[in-house]
Amino acid sequence: MRPNDTLLELCLELQILDRVPRSGYVLRGVDHPESVTEHSWHVLFLVWLLGSRIEGLDVRRAVEIALVHDLAELRIGDLPRVASRYFPPGAKASAELAAMAEILAPLPEGALGLYREYQEAKSPEARLVKACDKLQLMLKVAVYERWGTGALSEFWENPENFPDGGFPVVKELFEALRARRNEEQIPAGPPEA
Amino acid sequence: MRPNDTLLELCLELQILDRVPRSGYVLRGVDHPESVTEHSWHVLFLVWLLGSRIEGLDVRRAVEIALVHDLAELRIGDLPRVASRYFPPGAKASAELAAMAEILAPLPEGALGLYREYQEAKSPEARLVKACDKLQLMLKVAVYERWGTGALSEFWENPENFPDGGFPVVKELFEALRARRNEEQIPAGPPEA
Amino acid sequence: MRPNDTLLELCLELQILDRVPRSGYVLRGVDHPESVTEHSWHVLFLVWLLGSRIEGLDVRRAVEIALVHDLAELRIGDLPRVASRYFPPGAKASAELAAMAEILAPLPEGALGLYREYQEAKSPEARLVKACDKLQLMLKVAVYERWGTGALSEFWENPENFPDGGFPVVKELFEALRARRNEEQIPAGPPEA
Amino acid sequence: MRPNDTLLELCLELQILDRVPRSGYVLRGVDHPESVTEHSWHVLFLVWLLGSRIEGLDVRRAVEIALVHDLAELRIGDLPRVASRYFPPGAKASAELAAMAEILAPLPEGALGLYREYQEAKSPEARLVKACDKLQLMLKVAVYERWGTGALSEFWENPENFPDGGFPVVKELFEALRARRNEEQIPAGPPEA
Amino acid sequence: MRPNDTLLELCLELQILDRVPRSGYVLRGVDHPESVTEHSWHVLFLVWLLGSRIEGLDVRRAVEIALVHDLAELRIGDLPRVASRYFPPGAKASAELAAMAEILAPLPEGALGLYREYQEAKSPEARLVKACDKLQLMLKVAVYERWGTGALSEFWENPENFPDGGFPVVKELFEALRARRNEEQIPAGPPEA
Amino acid sequence: MRPNDTLLELCLELQILDRVPRSGYVLRGVDHPESVTEHSWHVLFLVWLLGSRIEGLDVRRAVEIALVHDLAELRIGDLPRVASRYFPPGAKASAELAAMAEILAPLPEGALGLYREYQEAKSPEARLVKACDKLQLMLKVAVYERWGTGALSEFWENPENFPDGGFPVVKELFEALRARRNEEQIPAGPPEA
Repeated sequence: MRPNDTLLELCLELQILDRVPRSGYVLRGVDHPESVTEHSWHVLFLVWLLGSRIEGLDVRRAVEIALVHDLAELRIGDLPRVASRYFPPGAKASAELAAMAEILAPLPEGALGLYREYQEAKSPEARLVKACDKLQLMLKVAVYERWGTGALSEFWENPENFPDGGFPVVKELFEALRARRNEEQIPAGPPEA
Repeated sequence: MRPNDTLLELCLELQILDRVPRSGYVLRGVDHPESVTEHSWHVLFLVWLLGSRIEGLDVRRAVEIALVHDLAELRIGDLPRVASRYFPPGAKASAELAAMAEILAPLPEGALGLYREYQEAKSPEARLVKACDKLQLMLKVAVYERWGTGALSEFWENPENFPDGGFPVVKELFEALRARRNEEQIPAGPPEA
Repeated sequence: MRPNDTLLELCLELQILDRVPRSGYVLRGVDHPESVTEHSWHVLFLVWLLGSRIEGLDVRRAVEIALVHDLAELRIGDLPRVASRYFPPGAKASAELAAMAEILAPLPEGALGLYREYQEAKSPEARLVKACDKLQLMLKVAVYERWGTGALSEFWENPENFPDGGFPVVKELFEALRARRNEEQIPAGPPEA
Repeated sequence: MRPNDTLLELCLELQILDRVPRSGYVLRGVDHPESVTEHSWHVLFLVWLLGSRIEGLDVRRAVEIALVHDLAELRIGDLPRVASRYFPPGAKASAELAAMAEILAPLPEGALGLYREYQEAKSPEARLVKACDKLQLMLKVAVYERWGTGALSEFWENPENFPDGGFPVVKELFEALRARRNEEQIPAGPPEA
Repeated sequence: MRPNDTLLELCLELQILDRVPRSGYVLRGVDHPESVTEHSWHVLFLVWLLGSRIEGLDVRRAVEIALVHDLAELRIGDLPRVASRYFPPGAKASAELAAMAEILAPLPEGALGLYREYQEAKSPEARLVKACDKLQLMLKVAVYERWGTGALSEFWENPENFPDGGFPVVKELFEALRARRNEEQIPAGPPEA
Repeated sequence: MRPNDTLLELCLELQILDRVPRSGYVLRGVDHPESVTEHSWHVLFLVWLLGSRIEGLDVRRAVEIALVHDLAELRIGDLPRVASRYFPPGAKASAELAAMAEILAPLPEGALGLYREYQEAKSPEARLVKACDKLQLMLKVAVYERWGTGALSEFWENPENFPDGGFPVVKELFEALRARRNEEQIPAGPPEA
């Protein structure tokens, strides 16, 4: 059967997520790029960090949405952005939901609900995760550029990479990041001595 | 625009195919696994090698089909096998054809026809490429196992991995490979001294 | 100055955590091993998964502890286990706390408190994170062994790798994992076809 | 014995070609560089693409020459360019031919003839393969530079890297590539969205 | 027991040193960076090369000091530079000495003495090794920069990276290196044909 | 010009040796295998370790021979063992000597003499280096096997891999290694806690 039967099966399958590299980097020649697991951790940290600064936001729920937001890539892979042009509208989202239903099968139904909420992106919590998903992208892009990769400059020109979800705290961080990058002040590594 | 405009654009985009690793290996922990480009070269060699031993087969056309058979993965990625369960029937094939139309845009129409022929798998030439696609899979699996990877044994039990396309010469090679693997006689590397 | 001044500096420094590989794997020849970021994500998922099954546990706090539990490795590195024998007792823990104070400088004080709570390991929440830290280790070990790595069997014989923190739900998962590994039933990858 | 005895042995040995990286990149610090298999596939594609645009050329034969042109590296390795200075004139070519005779032993004699034709470089088909061998080099160099590698600029100044074999269609592609590189218009990856 | 019992155990443990990458590069995104073993070889070569040009220096002893100077990293790891700020003064040096005593246990006492001499850095031989340790760092930094890594420029501004140990021959080499780097004349690889 | 002009040029070229992987491992699927630099360091350590246990041996000279013994691979590459079958007798040795003359050009003539002595393998010092060259090979093979690589067992059956150079201390170490490997007692990594 395809759906995971037990918590153990789910936990074992999740370990494989570390081997799914983020395709946007792979296809631009970044060596040893971020895995989907690594991306997920950073998004989650941002959601926690910024969520607690947004009044009325249910941080715990936002964290839970972040936790599951990319798990469908275990079974679908991390498709290149351009790929969605070639599928019928909605096909990718349906496929992801179907995959998630099988991955999360051993969990109570609410878990799949978190993913559905992410896809619909209507609740403030889901919008925050969507915003942090891109914020993390641009943070990593800035670091990769600092390290010498040459192929990511176009990311800064695509407005889709800068959604603030209506949250000023996200907007400010995007702006601070862009400013710092333009001033060539992205740190190369941890502080020396 | 998405379709390649010139031969040069096509040639440059093709270089990226080296960075698309074969997902079946990636998700089973094979390090530094075969790229789609490498897979494609081996399939092509097999088609040339075996095609000339099949009476009445148009080897040149078979080679051309092999040459284009995996190029859609440039824009769709190499989806895990399980992924197709989550898309509507035919959606993946349509997406691949649409991607191919844009990738091969600078070529005469016949080029896309080669891909369509591969998808339909009716001509003997297309059937040979389909068979060699799997024959190469099992050759590489045998080598990876010899090198110490532990996660590929299930591949030998899936009949879908052993299509002979109705060609005795393919069938014999599959059988010789399986026999040699069972006798633990897969060479570990090039001959010593 | 060494302490991070702003949220942005903190977020940028965190990206580097992906480049800190888990030393236990590195020194046993595992190629492309788990990063500390990946480990952290999996621990967090386990804490969320199992925490909600433990009555009276503050899951949100446990998740927060998991989120910060390994960040000191940004500045100290992931020392081999044997290393602590060569430092005075407590020196490593003090160093980690000092590093955390500088890393988390832009956050409210409570953040450092989460880390202190983890180090002291007295609260149920901290004990759960400690247990999941090892549970994740053994899940990944099982997967790496399945993939062909030969150097990890001693991990199954060290009782320190199997702390249940007094939580039956953790104990059961440890036992199910060990049973499945002994029966050679660890899946090699995602489900086929 | 050293010569391959059967088709199966040959096919298994070929899989190893993926592990022979192109030494020119390795020695200039390109990470995860192109393998000889990948190079071979791209050369073959170019020969097919351009050969059909050259009147009177036997495309099928040119494709076959491309297919075998680098197989000697299975047993000789991909020697750095400078290495040939240290061997007696012709020693490398003889060694390659001797290696090819053993590699291709299970094939009819004509196969080795394809390689001899390549070495002699007199026929238009062999000249086209020689030209595409370098054209592919410069295509990949352009992509690697775009991705951030700093060590390849001298390749553009060496006239030996720009042989057109007397074919205008190759010459034009070389010129279009150089122009595009000088205008900094090499695409960084597949088209976005 | 922790101390190595036999020469064989020592020799086997040393093989692992190849898997300890130099942390300064890892944390600045250098892919496939130098291992501690590689660093050690280069330092040793420099010590031999320059030592024979320094009157009165005991080259054999200097070479022996270079041979052991980084072995403690087998058990301590290659800590990031910033790490020492978080340990009590001298704790790292004591830990290294304690680790060395166990690593070198099968050797006569004089071997540990070589390491102590290195730590104290009073003898001309130890000072030469210390100087070559940094000279090698800057040679490799120059090569990595030439290859495209972007994150190492701050190394040129830290005077601690340019100790000459009072030896004019070291000073001259540092100066020649800096001059050549400023003139952008670091070779990208071996000479071309 | 090809010969290095200055010490600085020589030192810079040597850094590239880290990027020359040992071909025997590469062609047997070992991931991230030992570099020639790493091999050289280990050989040198063995020569120092065992040389001091051999009466009448000039350890300093043996160490110097070890230091240069593989540098020709900078310009020739690390040819697969089988390659020498395809060159005229002595051609590889002459090529290596010619390459060494250019690499070591900035050094006094004696340096090239060390390499000539190694090639002739008549002096006890050169014989010790030759023996340690293989002893290190088998030490690393034992460790790689312990880590899970499957493709190296044939190395134990080739008597050419076990030269003792007439030195009992080398013979004993070879025997101890083989015994330990047969008892499956090769340690997997550094000691745990």
